[in-house]
Amino acid sequence: MPTNPYFTARPDDKQALEEGPGFSPKFNADGLIPCVSTHAETGEVLMLGYMNDIALSKTIETGYVYFWSRSRGKLWFKGESSGMTQKLVQLTTNCDQSAVVAKVTIGEATSGGAQASCHVGYPNCFYRAIPTGIGETSEPVQMAIVAEKAFDPDEVYGKQ
Amino acid sequence: MPTNPYFTARPDDKQALEEGPGFSPKFNADGLIPCVSTHAETGEVLMLGYMNDIALSKTIETGYVYFWSRSRGKLWFKGESSGMTQKLVQLTTNCDQSAVVAKVTIGEATSGGAQASCHVGYPNCFYRAIPTGIGETSEPVQMAIVAEKAFDPDEVYGKQ
Repeated sequence: MPTNPYFTARPDDKQALEEGPGFSPKFNADGLIPCVSTHAETGEVLMLGYMNDIALSKTIETGYVYFWSRSRGKLWFKGESSGMTQKLVQLTTNCDQSAVVAKVTIGEATSGGAQASCHVGYPNCFYRAIPTGIGETSEPVQMAIVAEKAFDPDEVYGKQ
Repeated sequence: MPTNPYFTARPDDKQALEEGPGFSPKFNADGLIPCVSTHAETGEVLMLGYMNDIALSKTIETGYVYFWSRSRGKLWFKGESSGMTQKLVQLTTNCDQSAVVAKVTIGEATSGGAQASCHVGYPNCFYRAIPTGIGETSEPVQMAIVAEKAFDPDEVYGKQ
């Protein structure tokens, strides 16, 4: 690193890393950095995806979110199939520059209307709640669905 | 997996994984799952940390956020030094159960008053913005600080 002209070599100095202006993203052993997308208006967490250096550079260049699809092994322009792109309002990084948050607005589904994020059809990927504060038990926890679907995946992506 | 009684073995069936009630967290090669903490009132992303199966189980049991500290190699009760604990309002997981979001309220700093999250002193870790939509350039980007410090780390943690 840096792998491209936008990035600054990671400083040895902790204060420079934590409070300086240079962007020195820390990619993991797979060359990826996690990106949390949030809805610019509601603040809800939409999804957690991963970017490689190319996806991150394209995101910076274009102002739209690109991920690296781990399941498909390819660069992924978010919304390329569904129309539900993620346009950046703000991109921030954390103290040790090991993650980014993309505050975004969402494009409309090509099938019409919906502005959502999760391929399952929900507004965001975090639609199931895990019980907490339950003390020690020996039973598997049961999650509850805490959202309503915003679109029909079959209409947006076609029958799988 | 499952590594403890709360978890359900990961189903082969994609629909069961994405829409079923069983919690089958996907830990990475290091045995960790990313956890995004968000502020229950403002919705802001506070931090991105990692949990191993013990940290995740303790979080479920107690209703307070535990992480695995990668830098210190130990279980980390968030707020153990500062007092700024993260009490769960809701814990959710995503479609493929590869991440969790902890919606939390923050305990008060032992030094008095502040309810923040980042050890650098900011309310959350994402206090630097990266320029976006800049097109192709050959210059390193320069980040801007977009938050104000909420506490003095020296007062909360003592002089380092």
